[in-house]
Amino acid sequence: MIGEKREMEIGEDEWKVCCGSSDFAKLMVDSAPFESLEAAIYTARDIWFNLVNVTAWLEAFSAHPQIGDTPSSSINSDFARRSKAEQSTAFASTSSSALKELADWNVRYKKKFGFIFIICASGKTHAEMLAALKERYENRPIVELEIAATEQMKITELRMAKLFSDKARVVSEADS
Amino acid sequence: MIGEKREMEIGEDEWKVCCGSSDFAKLMVDSAPFESLEAAIYTARDIWFNLVNVTAWLEAFSAHPQIGDTPSSSINSDFARRSKAEQSTAFASTSSSALKELADWNVRYKKKFGFIFIICASGKTHAEMLAALKERYENRPIVELEIAATEQMKITELRMAKLFSDKARVVSEADS
Repeated sequence: MIGEKREMEIGEDEWKVCCGSSDFAKLMVDSAPFESLEAAIYTARDIWFNLVNVTAWLEAFSAHPQIGDTPSSSINSDFARRSKAEQSTAFASTSSSALKELADWNVRYKKKFGFIFIICASGKTHAEMLAALKERYENRPIVELEIAATEQMKITELRMAKLFSDKARVVSEADS
Repeated sequence: MIGEKREMEIGEDEWKVCCGSSDFAKLMVDSAPFESLEAAIYTARDIWFNLVNVTAWLEAFSAHPQIGDTPSSSINSDFARRSKAEQSTAFASTSSSALKELADWNVRYKKKFGFIFIICASGKTHAEMLAALKERYENRPIVELEIAATEQMKITELRMAKLFSDKARVVSEADS
């Protein structure tokens, strides 16, 4: 049917690749369809910051590999692929001793805050991420929790943009 | 030995009656002895707000009975006794229909925030606590988490005062 707008269908599993919280994924499915990526991001921010609770935040954080680790593909291979792609700048320029230092600080961070260090890695080197980790390590736990959630939202938005562009391509290929 | 100051010994279990977080209790034991109740409260606040993390906060919250429930004495009977004593004003003046409304709101609160409603109950009626619950229900989850932690600290301080005065009596009886 020419001129009819094809609706983009996004399942719970696809939302969980954007953000590893089950509550977030369910609420995004409930809120669909979206007019545009921007509308979806607007809703996603409201869900993430105002509706889901701390348990959902911790679930989302725990879905990530530690910065500097090669993601295990055993649990959620799409999620792991996204993590690896986002750290490609970093892996291109890091020595093994720097990775060791990053691993040590990851352990300290997790011991203090109870969750792994979350940072939007796109375009950052491991040295930049380590500097951010050391600075954020000084924060009070409740302050750091909110910063981690804000970084998670940046990651979610990048992944949503990728998801929407992949979907648009599939839809347009199906149309042609 | 006349004139020697007897030291008040407080074990991990006794700290857990004040605040149900294991990390908090361990760090209080590590920080002992304290010159006075005021010094202990100063340290306790630093540990609670700056050192232990969100997992410790959630552990402490989950040690409480829901407001309006009679505490179960099965897990930690000293803790349960303190909870019951703190709600004595409330239980003296509440109808069963009011308790039902409070129970319903407790369920809504926990569903939204992922932990039970924490409020320093001393001297408050159930109606006052229900009004506070309804008001706090509107908060963003991260905001409410910090308010709950602040209420937990008020409870902890009252219980520490009780613990110190009980201990002082025991020490002075042993001296006489």
